[in-house]
Amino acid sequence: MPLAITATLSFVAPHPVDCLLQCEVAGTPQQRIVNGVTTLPAAMPVQRVAAQDGVGERFWITAEGEVSILYEATVEIARRPAELSSLGQVAKTALPGDTTQYLFDSRYCAAETFQSLVEDEFHSLHGGARVEAMRDWIAQHFTYAPGTSGSHTTARDSFVERRGVCRDYAHVMIAFARASGIPARYASCYAPEVTPQDFHAVAEVFLDDGTGGDWVLVDPTGMAEPHETAVIGVGRDAADVSFLTSFGLVDFGGHAVSVERY
Amino acid sequence: MPLAITATLSFVAPHPVDCLLQCEVAGTPQQRIVNGVTTLPAAMPVQRVAAQDGVGERFWITAEGEVSILYEATVEIARRPAELSSLGQVAKTALPGDTTQYLFDSRYCAAETFQSLVEDEFHSLHGGARVEAMRDWIAQHFTYAPGTSGSHTTARDSFVERRGVCRDYAHVMIAFARASGIPARYASCYAPEVTPQDFHAVAEVFLDDGTGGDWVLVDPTGMAEPHETAVIGVGRDAADVSFLTSFGLVDFGGHAVSVERY
Amino acid sequence: MPLAITATLSFVAPHPVDCLLQCEVAGTPQQRIVNGVTTLPAAMPVQRVAAQDGVGERFWITAEGEVSILYEATVEIARRPAELSSLGQVAKTALPGDTTQYLFDSRYCAAETFQSLVEDEFHSLHGGARVEAMRDWIAQHFTYAPGTSGSHTTARDSFVERRGVCRDYAHVMIAFARASGIPARYASCYAPEVTPQDFHAVAEVFLDDGTGGDWVLVDPTGMAEPHETAVIGVGRDAADVSFLTSFGLVDFGGHAVSVERY
Amino acid sequence: MPLAITATLSFVAPHPVDCLLQCEVAGTPQQRIVNGVTTLPAAMPVQRVAAQDGVGERFWITAEGEVSILYEATVEIARRPAELSSLGQVAKTALPGDTTQYLFDSRYCAAETFQSLVEDEFHSLHGGARVEAMRDWIAQHFTYAPGTSGSHTTARDSFVERRGVCRDYAHVMIAFARASGIPARYASCYAPEVTPQDFHAVAEVFLDDGTGGDWVLVDPTGMAEPHETAVIGVGRDAADVSFLTSFGLVDFGGHAVSVERY
Repeated sequence: MPLAITATLSFVAPHPVDCLLQCEVAGTPQQRIVNGVTTLPAAMPVQRVAAQDGVGERFWITAEGEVSILYEATVEIARRPAELSSLGQVAKTALPGDTTQYLFDSRYCAAETFQSLVEDEFHSLHGGARVEAMRDWIAQHFTYAPGTSGSHTTARDSFVERRGVCRDYAHVMIAFARASGIPARYASCYAPEVTPQDFHAVAEVFLDDGTGGDWVLVDPTGMAEPHETAVIGVGRDAADVSFLTSFGLVDFGGHAVSVERY
Repeated sequence: MPLAITATLSFVAPHPVDCLLQCEVAGTPQQRIVNGVTTLPAAMPVQRVAAQDGVGERFWITAEGEVSILYEATVEIARRPAELSSLGQVAKTALPGDTTQYLFDSRYCAAETFQSLVEDEFHSLHGGARVEAMRDWIAQHFTYAPGTSGSHTTARDSFVERRGVCRDYAHVMIAFARASGIPARYASCYAPEVTPQDFHAVAEVFLDDGTGGDWVLVDPTGMAEPHETAVIGVGRDAADVSFLTSFGLVDFGGHAVSVERY
Repeated sequence: MPLAITATLSFVAPHPVDCLLQCEVAGTPQQRIVNGVTTLPAAMPVQRVAAQDGVGERFWITAEGEVSILYEATVEIARRPAELSSLGQVAKTALPGDTTQYLFDSRYCAAETFQSLVEDEFHSLHGGARVEAMRDWIAQHFTYAPGTSGSHTTARDSFVERRGVCRDYAHVMIAFARASGIPARYASCYAPEVTPQDFHAVAEVFLDDGTGGDWVLVDPTGMAEPHETAVIGVGRDAADVSFLTSFGLVDFGGHAVSVERY
Repeated sequence: MPLAITATLSFVAPHPVDCLLQCEVAGTPQQRIVNGVTTLPAAMPVQRVAAQDGVGERFWITAEGEVSILYEATVEIARRPAELSSLGQVAKTALPGDTTQYLFDSRYCAAETFQSLVEDEFHSLHGGARVEAMRDWIAQHFTYAPGTSGSHTTARDSFVERRGVCRDYAHVMIAFARASGIPARYASCYAPEVTPQDFHAVAEVFLDDGTGGDWVLVDPTGMAEPHETAVIGVGRDAADVSFLTSFGLVDFGGHAVSVERY
């Protein structure tokens, strides 16, 4: 089933400011872009670069004055839901080199300090079964509470506070997985059941699906199903896949997202 | 002039523990490995993977009991010292895609919060001239003080405390550069004048050398000259290039490093 | 010149929640309360307790449903502006015991880590002259920017970010003073020139005025003059003198403050 | 049963440094000092001040060169072990004003962020029964591990890491209690079963013992029994009751503690 996606961003840059945007669905074997158009202010040059791990693209603009950005796309998702508990753990010593960075501490996911905790709470479980148990632990202990966290909030903060939004749920999931020796990255995405509708974020964990290992989506908020999740981009954590990163002062005017089954 | 490098690590793993090591000089066009041997306990299998950005290798072992590791190498460095002030700043919108991640906040280098500060202190300077001024600012305001920082210490902490070791100097340099829109990464290395002799760390910044941009070594401690610095590996910050990352409890027995001009 | 003060608070408590309020001007020799009335919902019991260091009062209520609080007062301030540079530093070994706590690290003011920095920047100055230089340093390097900081922001954060509101300015001032061996506390207050009108906060430092030592107001934002500042209460930092501390969930509806010369 | 206590501290101050010491057992109705002598370098002036909440004393010295301090005392403890589960919770609105500060966030115990967590985990319990359950939760989930924490470690850190020493156990206990609306403070102390022998730290919580409320010792490490615990001093957390606070650089030479039943 295709998804029809619309996202708008607007902001004002009093002075020229370089901005990096990442709001378009990534074209991947599992995500076919039926059509997709980004509309920018007339005559604004755009410089595109491949995004992290080759998943999707980012683009640079030099913003000045009022800037409105409109992204419209129709996307076919071919991702099949994984039966988490059927997936194995890839031995760390057998991990592909490019997954290694996703075992390390990052800005918001200082995973190493969680090692004792995950060993205590989930010691009898491995691979997908452990990920499933960790996801359910977060879902059970956390309250989805917009407005209680912010751009400074880390996985450690969220773990203590037991509340937050999709970003915070994903960060704790990532920290738990890495502390278990399972590579985990952050995926920004669009999904139709996100309430209220907004950009969404989930975790991706690297598990053994019988082919040597692959990235699998996990959403501790329970709002995004893998077969209806349109991934924009991936990174170590939220620091890497912001929809707007401005290198200088901008007045952010707001954003709106709509995702519908087509 | 070649460098003769010897490094030893020893630790005890009461139970089998997966360990990731990164202690060998990277073979690159600027670093010719004349000879290099890593000696591990007999019969210990080793799994090698390419390290970050393709600079050098990491290797996995599953440690158990007493483990001693000896690395011996002779290395020719062909890196020429850059005249920092002659290097330009690559426009952010012209940066290669794979340098973008080095603009973002990482575990120890939450650079975004330094934007106002670097703009205040260094606003009239760009590119290599700004990097040089930032390096000198750190050198002037910081005291090299082993034992005053640790694995929890971030660039923000060090900036307030104005002291630390090579790791901390490099983190502040990286945060300053990223806050200025200059990609910056962390490089672990060997260098002959490091006092006391130990693993060393410096920053690498991406500047315009007339060829579209390249990574340039910068050492705010002043102990490592680029033409005598043997880089082991690179990453976002110290979290990415530890010489030993253990996924479980080990009793670290110590390490020793010797680097001599040959 | 008297000040006419009006403050309103409103919030909703879905379930009964104990709340501690501190919004009334403290009656002290330097602050004569001409008249002062706090109006609470009818039939709401109030339990008053002396506030920290005996400066003013706090009161407890058990809130339920919609709660509106109105405070109206007319206050005569008899505090004379101190010539900061004329005030000496009390030797630490001569400090009264009850000022000792204001040398220690608190929630938002981890002062010890600033010791090297204040020694570097202000080493030639002591007592009031040093406080004046530190106040001016903050005023010069910081930008008053509502919305850029929050309840998680510490003096260390603000020092790196160089921006914030009165709370953040006061925290950095306190950290600098404590790191210099000068006891410093946080004072919440009302003042007429605060823009936009709101609860205000300043620092108080303990200096030698020829009588053995006394608390002196210092406002790095420059918005409050000591002879027009009506202190509500004092504490280690903002954690101690919130106008509303709720022990459970409340929906905060907003507040409004008006302070006028009468 | 009396306790015989000996503590020694030594350090070197290259330049004159003001130092605040707090290492003597407090004389209180529950702790009779049979005899107690502090021996300092000859001719070193000492300035004594009452310590926090009037519990014991601190003293200032101006240290220079090698300093050795010897404290020897014999102390009778008359404190009866409290049956925690029999103690009630004092309504917050009935708390004495001077306990209010022990509900607030402090340097190492940012308690407010633990409110959801304690409500989830301990919601059915109140007063002493809740404190007992929280103490047991910590004892069960934490590993006593000297060397894994330091002077930067907060209650949040320890809660995530699930390990530490007496200081860290006490901080988490304090954070849990405050988040439950129970005033809690930090007590440094001597106790005979502390292994290895060292200065010790426990929490004190304010509970209803039928007389309106009193402070009760709680040790989540299980090493100190109230009737054998000789309290030195109290504070918000470890920031307030260090045995040695130096306002300048000293080389700490070490300390030794012996506590024996007499």
